[in-house]
Amino acid sequence: MGSAVIKLNSEILCAASAVGKQEYEGPLGTLFDLHCEDDRFGQDTWEKAESEMQRQCLGVALSKSGLREADIGALFAGDLINQCTGSSYGLLDYDIPYFGLYGACSTAIEGLMLSSIMTTTGIFDHCASVTSSHNCSAERQFRTPLEYGAQRAPTSQWTVTGSGLFITRSALQGSGKAKITEALPGISVEKGVTDMTNMGAAMAPAALDTLVRYFTESGSEPNDFDLIVTGDLGFEGNSILRDLLSIEGYETDERLTDCGMLIYDRNGQDMHAGGSGCGCSAVVLASYLLPKVELREINNMLILGTGALMSPDSIKQGLAIPGIAHLLRIESERS
Amino acid sequence: MGSAVIKLNSEILCAASAVGKQEYEGPLGTLFDLHCEDDRFGQDTWEKAESEMQRQCLGVALSKSGLREADIGALFAGDLINQCTGSSYGLLDYDIPYFGLYGACSTAIEGLMLSSIMTTTGIFDHCASVTSSHNCSAERQFRTPLEYGAQRAPTSQWTVTGSGLFITRSALQGSGKAKITEALPGISVEKGVTDMTNMGAAMAPAALDTLVRYFTESGSEPNDFDLIVTGDLGFEGNSILRDLLSIEGYETDERLTDCGMLIYDRNGQDMHAGGSGCGCSAVVLASYLLPKVELREINNMLILGTGALMSPDSIKQGLAIPGIAHLLRIESERS
Repeated sequence: MGSAVIKLNSEILCAASAVGKQEYEGPLGTLFDLHCEDDRFGQDTWEKAESEMQRQCLGVALSKSGLREADIGALFAGDLINQCTGSSYGLLDYDIPYFGLYGACSTAIEGLMLSSIMTTTGIFDHCASVTSSHNCSAERQFRTPLEYGAQRAPTSQWTVTGSGLFITRSALQGSGKAKITEALPGISVEKGVTDMTNMGAAMAPAALDTLVRYFTESGSEPNDFDLIVTGDLGFEGNSILRDLLSIEGYETDERLTDCGMLIYDRNGQDMHAGGSGCGCSAVVLASYLLPKVELREINNMLILGTGALMSPDSIKQGLAIPGIAHLLRIESERS
Repeated sequence: MGSAVIKLNSEILCAASAVGKQEYEGPLGTLFDLHCEDDRFGQDTWEKAESEMQRQCLGVALSKSGLREADIGALFAGDLINQCTGSSYGLLDYDIPYFGLYGACSTAIEGLMLSSIMTTTGIFDHCASVTSSHNCSAERQFRTPLEYGAQRAPTSQWTVTGSGLFITRSALQGSGKAKITEALPGISVEKGVTDMTNMGAAMAPAALDTLVRYFTESGSEPNDFDLIVTGDLGFEGNSILRDLLSIEGYETDERLTDCGMLIYDRNGQDMHAGGSGCGCSAVVLASYLLPKVELREINNMLILGTGALMSPDSIKQGLAIPGIAHLLRIESERS
């Protein structure tokens, strides 16, 4: 029916990530494939720098996988810049069929879900999904240009400068890679949050909705998973989600975490409520979580891409912020 | 490989459309399901009016089809407003899994293609795809607010105020509805066009690329189809596409047309180069073309959603405009 869990059988053949200076200086810094000390990636605008991260990620992933451009049946891509130009310009060099997505920060998992569906069903042999965010382009887009030096609220998150890319294929070969075995797409949820400096609060109810639907339909509970990781609720949103789950009768421990909590050093880096952005979940999954699944340190995890579907104009017009959360179950290959 | 034609077997169970005053006064005016004389749809902002069109279209389509909300496995939706809020707010009332898309004006066909793939492969029993554009929200977004009274260039197009929605399902039942039998997703193409007042010129090379790939792979030619219709090249872009096809050795006649040429009366309405926008191809397909396919006045057609993947900022930063064109083959049910 409308909200059934989708059974999938695809695997993530390879992943690639590129990040900026702050992300490189964080606890996962050495794990990322590429980084740039000045966040510019050799470009003269922040927007072009963001595109360049996507372009370089696809190049790295093709190299790693030994695939050619023509082997990729489709690219699913998105970012946070108006009209998604981060992706459309970033991927212009590649002659690969292109599906543009917009799911705010949930786009990384939205794209990976569509790639996984396409390769499970055999529509394409290989798909790539890629997302990016850039702190400086996002500040200009959603808040104020950096030059204003605006003060940030304690609940605000730091948009990750980063791009993460995944190549999926059918898991019929069973090569020992991380498998995507289930998907549950998100439903938009709006609970009256209007504070643009507290995205975690706006997105937590959507993560709750998807998780509760998943637990109910699959007959599972939080303790059945080695890890349940949301995209970018940050410390504030994670705490809210934990409370909301508890009200619904689901108790959670430190295995409920968030990519926005993992990417920066909370004490050493002044990132307030943690990381956010289309690039946040993408780079943490690509470079930190997937290797753990391949090494079987994590055997069975849920990842939820979380997105806040507002715009600066919708906020000015007084509308509350809808959230969405797309869920994937990722398992290690247990032969 | 990368650019192969995808064989599909889905049908468009029903469609719905809503338009504004100019579209209602055009030659197809009486065919649309809903219209609003003041383009406001009872709302106090143009952006909310756009959302309201999407919301009402889904309501109409559910009524027409006899389906319930829970029968729709997924919604594929998009629009032209920053961060795609036309869709995210328009569909918030519905508890249906939501995939946000951004393909500029190609989104109508991008969404219909994904819906068709999902129902062909059985991932979902029914999918809905919906897009919208609104002349007044688009002018504010891409050009200047209406109050400026800016003069329009002769090559400029008029963004259609309209929303079109399609519900697809597998065609295994064979109910006599229009069938989607093939798909060829678009590749981004950029040929140096920087003039934001000539979108037709920016998109025509993308339409050429997709059409030539399609003809080559399928061994077909323009005369094999009752109609080849692009989304919103307008008169200018259609003329360019015709010339480009001729250079490639494909001669075309009046059966190569464009939704942006069909929606307004060129002589009686002052719309310059024709209609454009996410809503243009959606409403023309929903209310004018699909009924002709069901009546077998059209048995075999190609439709190409055409999109220009720039933003106002990318133009200010001096970048040329990439285009994209997603192709679907739609056939009547020949029993």
